[in-house]
Amino acid sequence: MSKDEFQVYPLIDKKKHGEKLTSAEIKWFIQRYTQQLIPDYQMSAMLMAMFIRGMDTAETAALTDAMLESGERLRFPGRNVIDKHSTGGVGDKASFVLAPIASAAGVRVPMIAGRGLGHTGGTVDKIEAISGFRTKLSLTEFSAKLQSEGLVLIGQTPEIAPADRLLYALRDVTATIDSIPLITASIMSKKLAEGANGIVFDIKCGTGAFMRTPKAARSLAKSLIATAGRFKKKAVALVTDMNQPLGNEVGHSNELIESLETLKGRGPADLTELSLHLAAHMIHLAGVEKTFPKALAKAQEMVSSGKALAEFRNLLRSQGGDVRVVDDYSLLPLASERTVIAAPGPGYIKMFDNTLIGLLLIDLGGGRRSKADAIDHGVGFTFHKKIGDRVTRGEPILTVIHHAHQKEVVKAIKTRFLKEALTLSQTKVKPPKLILDQLR
Amino acid sequence: MSKDEFQVYPLIDKKKHGEKLTSAEIKWFIQRYTQQLIPDYQMSAMLMAMFIRGMDTAETAALTDAMLESGERLRFPGRNVIDKHSTGGVGDKASFVLAPIASAAGVRVPMIAGRGLGHTGGTVDKIEAISGFRTKLSLTEFSAKLQSEGLVLIGQTPEIAPADRLLYALRDVTATIDSIPLITASIMSKKLAEGANGIVFDIKCGTGAFMRTPKAARSLAKSLIATAGRFKKKAVALVTDMNQPLGNEVGHSNELIESLETLKGRGPADLTELSLHLAAHMIHLAGVEKTFPKALAKAQEMVSSGKALAEFRNLLRSQGGDVRVVDDYSLLPLASERTVIAAPGPGYIKMFDNTLIGLLLIDLGGGRRSKADAIDHGVGFTFHKKIGDRVTRGEPILTVIHHAHQKEVVKAIKTRFLKEALTLSQTKVKPPKLILDQLR
Repeated sequence: MSKDEFQVYPLIDKKKHGEKLTSAEIKWFIQRYTQQLIPDYQMSAMLMAMFIRGMDTAETAALTDAMLESGERLRFPGRNVIDKHSTGGVGDKASFVLAPIASAAGVRVPMIAGRGLGHTGGTVDKIEAISGFRTKLSLTEFSAKLQSEGLVLIGQTPEIAPADRLLYALRDVTATIDSIPLITASIMSKKLAEGANGIVFDIKCGTGAFMRTPKAARSLAKSLIATAGRFKKKAVALVTDMNQPLGNEVGHSNELIESLETLKGRGPADLTELSLHLAAHMIHLAGVEKTFPKALAKAQEMVSSGKALAEFRNLLRSQGGDVRVVDDYSLLPLASERTVIAAPGPGYIKMFDNTLIGLLLIDLGGGRRSKADAIDHGVGFTFHKKIGDRVTRGEPILTVIHHAHQKEVVKAIKTRFLKEALTLSQTKVKPPKLILDQLR
Repeated sequence: MSKDEFQVYPLIDKKKHGEKLTSAEIKWFIQRYTQQLIPDYQMSAMLMAMFIRGMDTAETAALTDAMLESGERLRFPGRNVIDKHSTGGVGDKASFVLAPIASAAGVRVPMIAGRGLGHTGGTVDKIEAISGFRTKLSLTEFSAKLQSEGLVLIGQTPEIAPADRLLYALRDVTATIDSIPLITASIMSKKLAEGANGIVFDIKCGTGAFMRTPKAARSLAKSLIATAGRFKKKAVALVTDMNQPLGNEVGHSNELIESLETLKGRGPADLTELSLHLAAHMIHLAGVEKTFPKALAKAQEMVSSGKALAEFRNLLRSQGGDVRVVDDYSLLPLASERTVIAAPGPGYIKMFDNTLIGLLLIDLGGGRRSKADAIDHGVGFTFHKKIGDRVTRGEPILTVIHHAHQKEVVKAIKTRFLKEALTLSQTKVKPPKLILDQLR
């Protein structure tokens, strides 16, 4: 492709007027930007035009492809390499449960996960609560471990879709994050680079999710599935509720403990249900089972037989983590103090502002305001109530896990939680459905 | 205003979603950008959002005000300080005719004019063909000369609306030029800073204009008038044809000669008509005459009495230009060679691509590709035909004024002119109306 095949200005102008860009035009633009031959101020004008005017499936696929081509691309033989992607939420630790289940069932699971930023936690941060666990592997090690172990979990690497990293940083400061085509291309370029042959998406919606409404979540799900299809990848998407934390724990060590309890068959109902369903879709996509009901039964069997838990132990062993953690939670860093936040009056839990709950965790030290921030794995929240639950005055709604010196912070968190994050109703409230939709 | 009154991201986000920005928000954004506290890539995202989502009159006025406040602002007492602004075109030398007419009639005319870039020529470049003429005066000199002489003409100065200069440079590379609110704010911030109490706009439309259609020109005219109104300035806008050069001359020295001929009462019909009308609106706005017909008669009288020409002589004297030029055109630099481009066959002139004509002048050395380019004042085109004229085969359509060494360039110009810039019709063509609309 010649360097001068296109020009920057006419392409911005075209998109600005709502015209479609060709695949060659999009690839040229992204390639030149990644080579730093197009300055940020032109890229941000283009991103805003793409954001407002939208992009169709062909344009989204071209953008995905351009970002994919900017870095390394792994390829694995066989149809049983299946990944899962969640759009992120509060208390979402399903990866720790579903990946060992799927792996135990014969699915090969290559996970390249993210770190937490803002109100959502990160899978990589959480697993790092386990002493010794290596989340930084070379792509060669990553591939080798997928072959030998069937399950591998690492953080983002610079070799995968570098264009996406550059673009995301720019979108983050130019209000061009929440665009379905741009989100789609960002997710898909990374997932395709990881070499998965099928992908199960968990699209969260609600007060703690990027997509606030089921409608927006469904649009993103459709866009992801359409783009996966263009790259000949099988895909399933679940649209799931994120109006309250998934499970009862929000934090790092405490979320890991809850995940292990779930792998032991003693987890909370919502986390168990979602993890089994997502794992079952992976098992089904991988072709391990011919029907979804059979895949679901297989997933349940992996838990009840202890095979999934064994798989988790193996993951720790494989990547240098302290395997004893599985049986001795005291090896995880956990703050010593507990403060209960109780119901200010009687009523039914009507609503949680789940994003605010994520932000209150940052106040406690359990999240990042900016990328350089360190994370305290030992702090967190334990929720005792779910939406729809009836509470009496003084009944505990949540317990804050904190350090002795954090009394003032906890006091402020309590005030904000009761005032802004919690809504009680005097009339009965129906608990929200967990899995709202399934698309393929 | 506190530095932290607003935040960049939420404001971009707001405009991106098509919401209106408040005056305080717009002013904060522009002020911070001008202070280089907001980087180009955030400003360009905002500009693209403003471009696509549009801005209402209040937002446009706030943007104008913000850019106005970024620099110096002149103020002159009395209602008779009237300026004129043309959106630019090919062969547009009306300023040289109308300003002396209006000034002779008692209007004070403070002109801060532009240089040519791309296909449109610049008033400042043209007057600089006259040896000694100073277009760089301090704002203090500018004000003093307006008071003493009633007419002053200079180029853009860095003290006037610096924010506009920064924004324009960014718009120029991010495809956000042709937005009516952004154009309006750019023009109005400069005009208001010059201290005019009334403004006459000449909004060009056609193949050689920024606004290609009368509809687009009318929209810009309305936006300019509405914004002028918000700043309590009187304004009139004419929508005029730019599908062919105004007058017969396109260049620098040759346009000045044509202007002088028009001031002497011997100019081409279109240039004479437009200059008289624009000057009459200035005379009327200034309150020199109570009705437009009386103002038009006054304008005509200023030409026939020689008072306008005397005013031009005075302008040259006041700003150091060689006054002898008025009576001896040979003192102007003019290339020695003439090449005639003749009709390739019989027909009626149907269309000129006026933008291309402007670009062909650049090929000849009579315009700028980039800001640093020098201009040859001595080259140009003399048109012998107008749209609607009948031509026979071999009849001259235009004469190229060039240097002896430019034979190859002229040959290429001839080929492109006949192939791309000229359309002949075999059926009769109606000459276009010059003044299409008048808005106030």
